[in-house]
Amino acid sequence: MRSREQYIESLRDGREVYFKGQRVPDVTVHPELRLAVEHAAIDYDMAHDPEWRALAVDERDGKPVSFYYQLPKSGADLLRRSQLIEAATMLGGTLVVLIKEIGSDALFALHVVAHELDQRKGTRYLERVRAFYDHVKDNDLALSVAQTDVKGDRSKSPLEQEHPDYYLRIVGETAEGIIVRGAKVHTSVSVNSNEVIVLPTRAMKQDEAAYAVAFAIPLNTKGVKLITSAYGAHHGDSAFDAPLASKHRMMETLTVFDDVLVPHQRVFLKGEWEFAGELAKSFVEFHRFTAISYKLPLVDGLVGAALLMTEYNGLERAKHVQDKLARLISYAETLRALIRLAAAECETGPLGIAVPKTLVVNMAKLHFATNFHQMLAYVQDITGGLIATGPSEADLENPETGKWVRRYLGGRKGVAVEDRLKAINLVKELTATDFAGYQAVLAIHAEGSIEAEKLAMVREHDAARCLSLAKRLAGIGPNQ
Amino acid sequence: MRSREQYIESLRDGREVYFKGQRVPDVTVHPELRLAVEHAAIDYDMAHDPEWRALAVDERDGKPVSFYYQLPKSGADLLRRSQLIEAATMLGGTLVVLIKEIGSDALFALHVVAHELDQRKGTRYLERVRAFYDHVKDNDLALSVAQTDVKGDRSKSPLEQEHPDYYLRIVGETAEGIIVRGAKVHTSVSVNSNEVIVLPTRAMKQDEAAYAVAFAIPLNTKGVKLITSAYGAHHGDSAFDAPLASKHRMMETLTVFDDVLVPHQRVFLKGEWEFAGELAKSFVEFHRFTAISYKLPLVDGLVGAALLMTEYNGLERAKHVQDKLARLISYAETLRALIRLAAAECETGPLGIAVPKTLVVNMAKLHFATNFHQMLAYVQDITGGLIATGPSEADLENPETGKWVRRYLGGRKGVAVEDRLKAINLVKELTATDFAGYQAVLAIHAEGSIEAEKLAMVREHDAARCLSLAKRLAGIGPNQ
Amino acid sequence: MRSREQYIESLRDGREVYFKGQRVPDVTVHPELRLAVEHAAIDYDMAHDPEWRALAVDERDGKPVSFYYQLPKSGADLLRRSQLIEAATMLGGTLVVLIKEIGSDALFALHVVAHELDQRKGTRYLERVRAFYDHVKDNDLALSVAQTDVKGDRSKSPLEQEHPDYYLRIVGETAEGIIVRGAKVHTSVSVNSNEVIVLPTRAMKQDEAAYAVAFAIPLNTKGVKLITSAYGAHHGDSAFDAPLASKHRMMETLTVFDDVLVPHQRVFLKGEWEFAGELAKSFVEFHRFTAISYKLPLVDGLVGAALLMTEYNGLERAKHVQDKLARLISYAETLRALIRLAAAECETGPLGIAVPKTLVVNMAKLHFATNFHQMLAYVQDITGGLIATGPSEADLENPETGKWVRRYLGGRKGVAVEDRLKAINLVKELTATDFAGYQAVLAIHAEGSIEAEKLAMVREHDAARCLSLAKRLAGIGPNQ
Amino acid sequence: MRSREQYIESLRDGREVYFKGQRVPDVTVHPELRLAVEHAAIDYDMAHDPEWRALAVDERDGKPVSFYYQLPKSGADLLRRSQLIEAATMLGGTLVVLIKEIGSDALFALHVVAHELDQRKGTRYLERVRAFYDHVKDNDLALSVAQTDVKGDRSKSPLEQEHPDYYLRIVGETAEGIIVRGAKVHTSVSVNSNEVIVLPTRAMKQDEAAYAVAFAIPLNTKGVKLITSAYGAHHGDSAFDAPLASKHRMMETLTVFDDVLVPHQRVFLKGEWEFAGELAKSFVEFHRFTAISYKLPLVDGLVGAALLMTEYNGLERAKHVQDKLARLISYAETLRALIRLAAAECETGPLGIAVPKTLVVNMAKLHFATNFHQMLAYVQDITGGLIATGPSEADLENPETGKWVRRYLGGRKGVAVEDRLKAINLVKELTATDFAGYQAVLAIHAEGSIEAEKLAMVREHDAARCLSLAKRLAGIGPNQ
Repeated sequence: MRSREQYIESLRDGREVYFKGQRVPDVTVHPELRLAVEHAAIDYDMAHDPEWRALAVDERDGKPVSFYYQLPKSGADLLRRSQLIEAATMLGGTLVVLIKEIGSDALFALHVVAHELDQRKGTRYLERVRAFYDHVKDNDLALSVAQTDVKGDRSKSPLEQEHPDYYLRIVGETAEGIIVRGAKVHTSVSVNSNEVIVLPTRAMKQDEAAYAVAFAIPLNTKGVKLITSAYGAHHGDSAFDAPLASKHRMMETLTVFDDVLVPHQRVFLKGEWEFAGELAKSFVEFHRFTAISYKLPLVDGLVGAALLMTEYNGLERAKHVQDKLARLISYAETLRALIRLAAAECETGPLGIAVPKTLVVNMAKLHFATNFHQMLAYVQDITGGLIATGPSEADLENPETGKWVRRYLGGRKGVAVEDRLKAINLVKELTATDFAGYQAVLAIHAEGSIEAEKLAMVREHDAARCLSLAKRLAGIGPNQ
Repeated sequence: MRSREQYIESLRDGREVYFKGQRVPDVTVHPELRLAVEHAAIDYDMAHDPEWRALAVDERDGKPVSFYYQLPKSGADLLRRSQLIEAATMLGGTLVVLIKEIGSDALFALHVVAHELDQRKGTRYLERVRAFYDHVKDNDLALSVAQTDVKGDRSKSPLEQEHPDYYLRIVGETAEGIIVRGAKVHTSVSVNSNEVIVLPTRAMKQDEAAYAVAFAIPLNTKGVKLITSAYGAHHGDSAFDAPLASKHRMMETLTVFDDVLVPHQRVFLKGEWEFAGELAKSFVEFHRFTAISYKLPLVDGLVGAALLMTEYNGLERAKHVQDKLARLISYAETLRALIRLAAAECETGPLGIAVPKTLVVNMAKLHFATNFHQMLAYVQDITGGLIATGPSEADLENPETGKWVRRYLGGRKGVAVEDRLKAINLVKELTATDFAGYQAVLAIHAEGSIEAEKLAMVREHDAARCLSLAKRLAGIGPNQ
Repeated sequence: MRSREQYIESLRDGREVYFKGQRVPDVTVHPELRLAVEHAAIDYDMAHDPEWRALAVDERDGKPVSFYYQLPKSGADLLRRSQLIEAATMLGGTLVVLIKEIGSDALFALHVVAHELDQRKGTRYLERVRAFYDHVKDNDLALSVAQTDVKGDRSKSPLEQEHPDYYLRIVGETAEGIIVRGAKVHTSVSVNSNEVIVLPTRAMKQDEAAYAVAFAIPLNTKGVKLITSAYGAHHGDSAFDAPLASKHRMMETLTVFDDVLVPHQRVFLKGEWEFAGELAKSFVEFHRFTAISYKLPLVDGLVGAALLMTEYNGLERAKHVQDKLARLISYAETLRALIRLAAAECETGPLGIAVPKTLVVNMAKLHFATNFHQMLAYVQDITGGLIATGPSEADLENPETGKWVRRYLGGRKGVAVEDRLKAINLVKELTATDFAGYQAVLAIHAEGSIEAEKLAMVREHDAARCLSLAKRLAGIGPNQ
Repeated sequence: MRSREQYIESLRDGREVYFKGQRVPDVTVHPELRLAVEHAAIDYDMAHDPEWRALAVDERDGKPVSFYYQLPKSGADLLRRSQLIEAATMLGGTLVVLIKEIGSDALFALHVVAHELDQRKGTRYLERVRAFYDHVKDNDLALSVAQTDVKGDRSKSPLEQEHPDYYLRIVGETAEGIIVRGAKVHTSVSVNSNEVIVLPTRAMKQDEAAYAVAFAIPLNTKGVKLITSAYGAHHGDSAFDAPLASKHRMMETLTVFDDVLVPHQRVFLKGEWEFAGELAKSFVEFHRFTAISYKLPLVDGLVGAALLMTEYNGLERAKHVQDKLARLISYAETLRALIRLAAAECETGPLGIAVPKTLVVNMAKLHFATNFHQMLAYVQDITGGLIATGPSEADLENPETGKWVRRYLGGRKGVAVEDRLKAINLVKELTATDFAGYQAVLAIHAEGSIEAEKLAMVREHDAARCLSLAKRLAGIGPNQ
């Protein structure tokens, strides 16, 4: 199990990273990217922290490995995985750590699909997947996953686009490996992980076989260019003013593959177009379970912040506040309940891998995503306008302004002004800053779209049971 | 275990029942009330039906008893109870059978509260509860529960009302028992059950001790008057036109207690005002689990009817239909998921009785109740205007009209016109008739109000966990 | 201007009407259909009632004619038309009278489209439309409109169906006129109007020219068969128990055209397929303004019933009731506001006919339709479970039951029990009976579907203004 | 009419302003506050801009004055006022300019209430109001309004708080004027206006007379301290990355009154506690009309951005996008419709001042506020995850990264990558940054709370009309 220091050191490998148009020579010391590195290091800290080690580390196979990298075999494994993700995200200030979560989701999917592919096609991809999996597990690596193609015109397929590279594709092959060209967007934690797993974004047709490609490579591979989004830069804020964003950060890149050579041993799909959709879907289904798990500290944080502001503002007896609290609680606890059930009612697939119940996972994700923005409104309502008009830490520190802030911005008797302002600042970050906006955009777009979740639900639902019931009730059928 | 015939015979006991202002001499032969009796008999049929016996009958104590009357001791018991309720309601055409469901909920609550009362007050109510419970179980009785007082002005307490009888109360006591006066509303299945259990409707204060009363008596007890609601009379309809209401019926009464003598052995609360609220609440919590269980065939029926009409109308590819189906599925399956979790995560209370997790039960009930009406709109939307403008069975039967109906009211090729019309009639009854209205009013009012469910959720929620998380995130507290 | 008696007499014309499979020899004396006739007669009463004459009758052209049949020339005309529709529907117990409303909508559309068609094609349809219009106006006729084809498989066009008659079409032509075959559904007031106007249901393509047909004929024309829906029969109920349905009724038919001869003078579209969609759309746009106008007594009735029950139940100070009232008020008053604005901001089209602002009309309709079911839930919530469990008038009348009903079903002091029960019965009919179901299905399906309203809004919206603003804000464009 | 330069110069008056704990010697040159000054100067530019002068300047009294400062006398005046506010806010990048809007709202309310107060109490406040009004109008001043008290424990009244200054109050009186002590929060544009009008925040009781105080003073008055909120600082961003926030800014202060002397001539309420609530309410009602007017560019901006991204992403034919566009359009256009109607149906009060129809204004405000957050979700959904993960202008400028951005982040053919990124950046600022959060918090809290709007609606609604209708429908009353 690597230490925080080993992890950080491993990122100083010459990778080609850009931030605001500037090449970043060392991500571990860049003022903004450093935040992302520190945030990710939470994962390595947990493995060595007595409080979390039992949850984070698995020793069932004789040697300690990260529990993220254990293939889940039961509902209990999935529940523990969910709890581990929740704990890490809580330590991450409601922001998922992700450097093992997403990669393990991809590894699980690669196992399942490679197995099926080998069965059906006589290929030997599973061996390669297992070799890469052992490499990752044994070296306790941090992983990112690049899936979403840049897509161009969304009404067109890969071959109909203005140029053929709007979806990543194979452009050549040598004795050493394949050559890939294209770009992926929304690649999270790519600047601070060790390897990137690349997966197809959608199903492909026969003439799109060049786009059916999956592989894994180190992030310092020649030709891989990481153009980081500067959205949400807060590295200068104080912990008082920005309790979350001042310490926690996740970064995404436009990830360019400029004719990159991928060694054969690292290629997991190469033109088997019938499996592109299956692999995309399998990854997303695992990843949505991760997603709903890492949302828990966020939704509980919203509930907790609302409860705290209710208390600090003296609003316990206001009926409309009770109503809003009930809606917040229902929102958060329905998510939690569905997660628990998705784990408990998992289905065991090929290789004994436990798959969280897909219908329930998608219900949970849709529930989270379609109600999130309204929940922000309730928390803002209970908190008050000071979210947007309150003073900063510096105003407290200057005695000339601090005395007025202390005199006038108290709430209920007995509550320290500092605590009330801290609570308001938490609400600010959860609902009304770049940090909040980031979470809101993730709610809508991460781990597949809302429409994709609806489709998955209709597909996974037991229509036969309901149709049969309806026919029985209506008196339709042979026995009526 | 009684047979259907024994049950029906047991109702011919001289009870004082009125329907549309007329005394009903025999409920088992009255054209409208008969429907309710037949519907309730489903319960007795199940115990003797090989398909359902294993679910409905419990033999763990050596002799067969109705599983409804087994005190639940585990999540598995609760789940089986839920499945039994679901199955009976399915056979009941989406209408709960209720003659054991509600009574057993009251019995469970009486056990729990009598135990606590005896512990705290040195009384011996539990003995009486157990004796009554054995009587019910051994004789396989049908039970109703009268809880909701008529209330008068809802902004006033019992003693502030225009007269003192707006809440049922003790008005005297003799060597044989207590004398009670008042009336309860919404008493379901009272016309066709054997005994009625009477419970307080709310918490009482010290000076309201006379209103803190609970007991059980046979429905032919002198002074008990059952004034039945005539709402939703459909006994003349054909099974084609009204597949549900023509066969299934539940009836409520205004239940008047005209100075009724209740034997001491049947009194379970007599002035211990501190326990009135507890008893009301405990019953409601058990009963809400019953409620969410018996809603399953209704919500699955809505989903199934929508799927069927999608198919019959040729709408599979309409995107807006997919969207509405996804919302219906999410609605129904979230309810199902929460029920399963409420059972699985039950808490075992006094006497080893398993209590479904109250927070989750209330979330499920609120979810069901607050979205129900909107779901009707989606099903109506998919089905089409023929719900309100379609022909009746008689139009099919007359060849002169039947030929046109058959020619013109087909949908997708291959679907029989009769089947399409049957499906439309099912939607009609689920969404747009008195039967549908009855279900909708129940959704809002049965088993406690929407506002009561919100309060229960706020009360049962783990606020401490969320407050602690919020403080941690905000940096509030001794360690910050 | 005809009298009620003249109107009723005019319906005894040998028309071929069926109810529950039975031929109805005289609609004016049939127990159920009579209700619909009486309801429609409200229109003729108003013209002779001093309270309403000024609103209902127009004398601007020298002789009194029904204001419904005046071509609207201004916003003021449209507002008066809306007020007339509202008043008639109020007298109709929230049920639209419709025998002139819908026909005049069709006549307005026929004027507009015939004018355009004549301009573009050199035809002379406008003459025919005007002749028919004068006939209707001069004779103060009652009209129905048959538009919705039976459609069969909704994923298929007319020619792709199992048989060619799923959409009404021209099957021949003689010297006297054209021969039409097919059937329409949802034809309201056909059993009790004088003439039926037939319009296409959708746009047609060139090879579907036979389906592009519009005309008007008397309802006793040979080959016209009216198969009435029996849904919602309440003719035996008392005014106390069913204050609305016992007196007010609208009926729909499956309207069969069994090779019906339509005289040439009465044909308004005959194969000009390019205008089928335009005519369908133009009618619907006029008709949606009628629709939102006639919804006002219904939504105000819901608000009023909620206010009344709030008072009768003593709930004025309950915060959640205030919240629900605010939502109901917002719902009803937004509808009213949009109607007023749609009239005020009308656009004057060909022939000087004022067209209500289409965007706003569709917004109003969508607002009404998509929130209606939820509003029913609020009114039910405020009213209480007695909607479904309360006694009937007969229970009040029998002294034995009446004394208990009077003693126990009072609410707030000072409110007569009869009044409280009447108010509850009103809520029952507005929210929980066949009558309510009829209104709910109309909300979803009448005057075009919810999806059609959305499409109309997107089409009518001033996208250019918003796009230009967005570009300006984003700094996109030549001047940036 | 002042020029931009005169306005800016007028702010260099020694006022005591703090930002992040630092005294700001000159607000016109401070990097962050300067933005607010420049933004406000839009108002002065408009008066001299040929494009806007006719709208912004009124010459009806012979000399040009700002139209904001004309007392509205008709619906046409109110509509023009609304259009002026909309235009200024559009120029302000969706951010209200406010330096005359809010002050004139206060002046209108002061006229109305001073008139009534003088009538009832024999005071002579109206003279003072008029004198101040002339001063403002003649000198074309910029105004702020301080209304919201800091409140402390919201469950307690002013005298029950931990100290007596949680609401601003009169603490003394001299020959020159009154001495006031306390603080107000959320005071917008106080750092860059000339005078501040202070109003009570709520109704007061007799023993709270010291809290019933209203007045106006210059912002450099001794003892007035302005502690500015640093929330949303974006002064370093480029116009490409932050098209709105880089140029537009409004700032709020905690406004402390440290025993400030207010000259008698500037006091408009001094202890007449019965009028405190009336003044608070009157101001808010005028101000809510301003509020809904200035929301128009924001909601149209959301619609326009969604339309633009639909086009740029090639999503025109996606049904779910059409659905979301319809919801956005309905949201924006309902707001616009209600504004127009509120102006058209205004009521003329004392002194001939036209008051926008209060019921409709509150409906509009509630509609805006309760749906705003959900609308953000729709725009985010249509736009895509690049909101949070896209590159910055610097990435475009560096050729090394720019070539990849240009190659891969195009959308539909023919759309420049720069334009697509600009559109995405607009969505970012409208939905997912501090700037968006600021707008969202304003949506919930500015111009009174959501609950206050509901109360106003219930109060202003014509309950009598609806009650009368309900009674008529139910058959309740003397004539039944």
